[in-house]
Amino acid sequence: MKKVNVLGKYDIAIGERLIERAGMAIKRVCKGKKCTVVSDSNVAPLYAEKVLDSLRQAGFEPSLFVFDAGEKSKNLHTVTQMLNFFAQQELTRSDFAVALGGGVVGDLTGFAAAIYLRGIQFVQIPTTLLAQIDSSVGGKTGCDLESGKNLVGAFHHPALVLIDTGALSTLPDEYMRDGMGELIKYGAIKSPEIFEILEKETCFARLDELIHKCVCIKAEIVEKDFTEQGERALLNFGHTVGHAIEKLENFGGISHGSAVAIGMCVITRAAERVELCHKGNAARIEAVCKKYGLPTEYDASAEEIANAALNDKKRNGNILKMVLIRKIGDSYICPVDCDKFDRFLEGNVKA
Amino acid sequence: MKKVNVLGKYDIAIGERLIERAGMAIKRVCKGKKCTVVSDSNVAPLYAEKVLDSLRQAGFEPSLFVFDAGEKSKNLHTVTQMLNFFAQQELTRSDFAVALGGGVVGDLTGFAAAIYLRGIQFVQIPTTLLAQIDSSVGGKTGCDLESGKNLVGAFHHPALVLIDTGALSTLPDEYMRDGMGELIKYGAIKSPEIFEILEKETCFARLDELIHKCVCIKAEIVEKDFTEQGERALLNFGHTVGHAIEKLENFGGISHGSAVAIGMCVITRAAERVELCHKGNAARIEAVCKKYGLPTEYDASAEEIANAALNDKKRNGNILKMVLIRKIGDSYICPVDCDKFDRFLEGNVKA
Repeated sequence: MKKVNVLGKYDIAIGERLIERAGMAIKRVCKGKKCTVVSDSNVAPLYAEKVLDSLRQAGFEPSLFVFDAGEKSKNLHTVTQMLNFFAQQELTRSDFAVALGGGVVGDLTGFAAAIYLRGIQFVQIPTTLLAQIDSSVGGKTGCDLESGKNLVGAFHHPALVLIDTGALSTLPDEYMRDGMGELIKYGAIKSPEIFEILEKETCFARLDELIHKCVCIKAEIVEKDFTEQGERALLNFGHTVGHAIEKLENFGGISHGSAVAIGMCVITRAAERVELCHKGNAARIEAVCKKYGLPTEYDASAEEIANAALNDKKRNGNILKMVLIRKIGDSYICPVDCDKFDRFLEGNVKA
Repeated sequence: MKKVNVLGKYDIAIGERLIERAGMAIKRVCKGKKCTVVSDSNVAPLYAEKVLDSLRQAGFEPSLFVFDAGEKSKNLHTVTQMLNFFAQQELTRSDFAVALGGGVVGDLTGFAAAIYLRGIQFVQIPTTLLAQIDSSVGGKTGCDLESGKNLVGAFHHPALVLIDTGALSTLPDEYMRDGMGELIKYGAIKSPEIFEILEKETCFARLDELIHKCVCIKAEIVEKDFTEQGERALLNFGHTVGHAIEKLENFGGISHGSAVAIGMCVITRAAERVELCHKGNAARIEAVCKKYGLPTEYDASAEEIANAALNDKKRNGNILKMVLIRKIGDSYICPVDCDKFDRFLEGNVKA
C-alpha cells in the first residue's frame, strides 16, 4: 500500500483490498459514531455490504443512501434528498459520510457533507479510475445546475481517501475509457513519462503505478493552489471544450472522459494552428486517445461549442482562461477574450 | 456613520441613508461588473429600486431576484431558484450578490453566494432589527431542511454590511418585537448595560446606540471563535428551546424573536430551579420580554420540547451544549446529556 499526504491534512491510501478494511482505517481519523455510506445503483450492489460490514466491525453505526447512477443525478435534487437522509439518520457534527463510487458519488457526497450542519467529515472510496486519479483528490465538491456543469459547490477536504485498485477489476470498459481520458490529461499537462508509458505500452499492467503518479501530481498542484487561482487551473486542460460538449449532449449523451479527450484534441489543434503549441503535439494526443478507444472529433461548429462553453464558470469577467500545452508535459494558462473564443477554436485568432 | 471591522476582513457600516448610497460603498470592495440584488416580497417594493439605482450609478449592471417573504421560503427550493437565476444572469466568479432584507434574505443569499461557482462575494443590507444586530454579522449562512432549522449552510463572510437604521422606520411592529428578542439576548449573555437600558427606558430612542453595541459584541465573539467551537455558541442562548418551538409551530406559526424570548425564559427558569443560575434572573428576563410585547411561556410539555430540540444541530454526539446564564451579562456553556434534557427542562435534574 502506498500513501500520499495532502496539505498535511489527510492521507490518500492506494492499494488492494482497502474496501474490506475500510472501517479500521476510517476509525483512525473519524471520531463520530454514526455515518452514512452514499453510493449509486451501480456500485452499491457490488461493494456497499462490504463497506457497511467493515464499518460495523470497527464500532460505527452506518446507514446506506443509494441514488440512481449517472450524471443525470448530479443535481441539487439528489443533494436535497441526501441531506434529508442525513437529518433523518440524526447525523451530528461529529458524524461523517462515506462516498463509495465514482466521481458523481464523490462530488455529491462531499458537497452534502460540506453544507450539512455547515460541514461534517467525509471519506472518499473512489471505485472508478476517473475518481481515483482525479475527482477524489483535492477537495472540490459540487453538482450541476440546469444552466451548466459544476456551477454549484464547495471546497471541502475529505478526512481520508481509500483508493482500492482492486475495484477496477469490476469496472466496465466504458468507465475505464472514461478514466483514460484523465490519465492522458495528466501526461499532457505535467508528465512526459506518463504520456510515454501510455503511448508505448498497454497501460493496464502498470495501472497502480500510473494511479500513484497521477495522485502525486494532483496532490502537488492542490498544495500549491488550493482554491484554483493559478496552477490548479491547469487540471482543466481539455475541460472548457469538454464541458461545452457535455452540455450540448445534455450531460448524459457522452462520458466525461470522452468529452475531455475531444476537448484536449480540439484545443491543441487550434493552438497549433496559431502557433501557441509546438507542431506535432495534437497528433500525439489524438493517437493516444484513439489507442484507448477515446473520440477525438465532435460534430459541432466552433460557434456552438463557444456558446456552450461561455456559460461555464471558468469565464472570469470577459476573459476566458484557457489551458494550453506548449508540448507534452508543459502546460500554461492562456487568457482569451470571450468574444473571440469561437474564432480561436477555428484557429483564426491567436487570443 | 459608525464603522465596525470584523476580523480585518470586512466593514459593518451603521447609519442613516446608507441604502441610497449603497453603490459607491460597494464599489470600494466589489470589483465585478454584474450583481444580483436578492430581496423578498415585503422589502423589494420599499427599497429595491433605490438599491438598483444606486448600483447603476456606481457603474454596476444589477439584476433583481425576489422571492415570497417568510420563513417558509427558507429552504433549498428557494436556494435552487436563486442559483439558477445567478446562472441565467451569467454571474461570474468576480461578480457578487446583494442581500436586501431580513434574516431569511441574508441567510439564503449568503448561502447561495457561498456555493455558486464555489463562492462569490456578497453584500448584506439588512432591513430588520433582527438582521441588523444578529444574522447579518458573522458569516453564518444557510437554510432549513424538512427535518429542522438551519441544518444546511456554510460559513461565508460578506464583503460589506450596510446597516441603514432609517429602514427600521418602515418596519412593522411584529418585526420590531422580533428583533427585541435578540436585543434582550445580547444584554442577557454579555451586557448588563444593554439589559438595563432595555429595563429602564423605552429603547427606541437609543436604538442606533444599541445596534452599535450589539454589532460590537457579535463582532468580538466572531473574532474569537469563527467556527463556533466555543464562545460563539453563547449567541445561541434561548435558541435550542426557541428552535424546538419554531419546529413545533412548523416554522411559521411563531416569529424567531418570540421563540427565542420563550426559549430564554424556559431555560433560565429551569436553570434557576437546579441552581445553575442565580435566583431572580428569570424574572428579570420575563419582565423585559413582556415590556416589549414578547411571550414568555409556551403550551407544550418538556418532553415535546426536548424531542423537537434533539433533532437540532447543537447536539454533539449524545451531549447537548446548552447556553445558560449565571446572572444577567454572564453566560456559559453547560453540557447536558440528551436523554436527560426533558427532565432538565422540568427542573428535575442538574445536567
